[in-house]
Amino acid sequence: MQKTIKFYSKPSIIATSSIVGPKEGEGPLGRFFERIIFDDTFGEKTYEKAECKMLSYAIEKSVVNAGLSVENIDALLSGDLLNQIVSSSFAARSFEIPFIGVYNACSTMTEALALGAMMTDGGYFDNVVAATGSHFSTAERQYRYPLELGCVRPPQSQWTVTGAGSAVISSKRSDEFPHITHATFGIVSDFGVKDANNMGAAMATAAAATIKTHLENLNLKSSYYDLIVTGDLGALGSRLLKKVLRERGVDIDKNHVDCGELIYNIDEEEYQGGSGAGCSASVFNSYIYDKMRKKKLNKVLFVATGALLSTLTTQQGESIPSIAHAVGIENEVN
Amino acid sequence: MQKTIKFYSKPSIIATSSIVGPKEGEGPLGRFFERIIFDDTFGEKTYEKAECKMLSYAIEKSVVNAGLSVENIDALLSGDLLNQIVSSSFAARSFEIPFIGVYNACSTMTEALALGAMMTDGGYFDNVVAATGSHFSTAERQYRYPLELGCVRPPQSQWTVTGAGSAVISSKRSDEFPHITHATFGIVSDFGVKDANNMGAAMATAAAATIKTHLENLNLKSSYYDLIVTGDLGALGSRLLKKVLRERGVDIDKNHVDCGELIYNIDEEEYQGGSGAGCSASVFNSYIYDKMRKKKLNKVLFVATGALLSTLTTQQGESIPSIAHAVGIENEVN
Repeated sequence: MQKTIKFYSKPSIIATSSIVGPKEGEGPLGRFFERIIFDDTFGEKTYEKAECKMLSYAIEKSVVNAGLSVENIDALLSGDLLNQIVSSSFAARSFEIPFIGVYNACSTMTEALALGAMMTDGGYFDNVVAATGSHFSTAERQYRYPLELGCVRPPQSQWTVTGAGSAVISSKRSDEFPHITHATFGIVSDFGVKDANNMGAAMATAAAATIKTHLENLNLKSSYYDLIVTGDLGALGSRLLKKVLRERGVDIDKNHVDCGELIYNIDEEEYQGGSGAGCSASVFNSYIYDKMRKKKLNKVLFVATGALLSTLTTQQGESIPSIAHAVGIENEVN
Repeated sequence: MQKTIKFYSKPSIIATSSIVGPKEGEGPLGRFFERIIFDDTFGEKTYEKAECKMLSYAIEKSVVNAGLSVENIDALLSGDLLNQIVSSSFAARSFEIPFIGVYNACSTMTEALALGAMMTDGGYFDNVVAATGSHFSTAERQYRYPLELGCVRPPQSQWTVTGAGSAVISSKRSDEFPHITHATFGIVSDFGVKDANNMGAAMATAAAATIKTHLENLNLKSSYYDLIVTGDLGALGSRLLKKVLRERGVDIDKNHVDCGELIYNIDEEEYQGGSGAGCSASVFNSYIYDKMRKKKLNKVLFVATGALLSTLTTQQGESIPSIAHAVGIENEVN
């Protein structure tokens, strides 16, 4: 039974932070990111250490932006695309915060936001941090080919975002900040897509299912939301999402955007747009959050989408199961 | 700030299930496991598919044992040691249950139990499943060497358990069942251990820190618990845990056991005992739960321990950060 949770105490997102690599910084959202690094090793010896350092930066900066210190944070909810979520674990090592590792691939941001909302709404914790990130160069060598091989990318492929984002969720309700009002955890779906370069298509049906359930459970029309923002379906996946939902009687043509479509200039070689856990994490925790704080957006449904594959499952001939978690975020409008 | 959560509505563990491989079945706890498989491929073509099938078995059987059907389960909290927790994701694919992927290595069982207790205690969900597992042959080839190489294991090494365990946590309070009363999420600690064959030592200090904080936060003596059961420290790690705690004024000599020490016959070649997420998952969800249901144990502190490494972090010269999450489980004693 897929329920939609209502958070009665309306836990607030009191601060965010974002950090991206040079390519993302040059994109249309460049000015919204808190920090752009111009060397994608971030001064580290390996790309993996750079990914961890970016995630650590986002976590620490979001806490500072909230006017808090690390001692005020009761839990860190984080996960990432590296094997054994080591960017998160090693970032957690540098903070004295209880660590709750989470993983639903690129839907980790909304998974963590939903869990963080439960923890603060339920009265268990006062402040929690939800964070994730990814790095183009670590994802390429872990999931696909070493960069040194210079492989040609197929046209349906997306470009893993080098970036991280972090949000501080607080039980101290204030109408100044956007509240997390609802969450719908997704069911794993699998439509038999086996092309690991075409994850947008695999994830589109998962996003469609979660969005439809969320709206139905709350008896809402899709137009209730100013924006329905998906994680990283890319251009092809986004078209597919709209088509699938239209067939099921839900029209999101006018109020849907995809973080993967927003983050890069469309004339670049990333083909379908951005992907990776850091895609929705960096876009939500900068551009979207900024628009909500300025009341340009008041009702947002944030639906990060994840492809639950590994290199091993692909090697063993498996298709790509996908998931999407939806989080409703709203301003108090009087 | 490391808090200990108190669950006022006392969410109940209304059923469990466990499944293990042949070696575990021959150990001293053999008769407590719900199912022992005698072919560790479980009829599948690969060990990874076998691991996933075992986890699926435990999940499904725990739901049946609870007298429920899958439609009654609001969320599946699961994670495992395979890259991108694919055993859990692919197990989730076969159930129509919202999936929340979690990962804290071998402490995943208590992480999932604590989150499940929050979800049911907080009134968000009625029934959730917490499950994890591991497989000797998948862990060996992912983390160490292909079995075919026939490498000699060093004496400080542990043996990854082939097994899975699952628990159903329900908001419907009944004094018939053990309740989850408290949870303390652990902070990542790192004492510079770099030997990936000696994870028991790396995890012992994390377990010591969490146990001490849990007892202090609740103002309890260690003797309050009938049993303090750690996840998979093994023989060496357990000795280290007791020594570290004794130095900090906490004596658990009389009421501590370690799942890794319990699961195998001591004359075997697994040296330090069992390890892996499936170790504490299979032991808790069989032997320990059984003793609680029969009121032979009434107050148990379950502390699964995790080593947050990956092959990549070891290759890049990193030490092994560790974590331990504690869950207090008690019978209502009148």
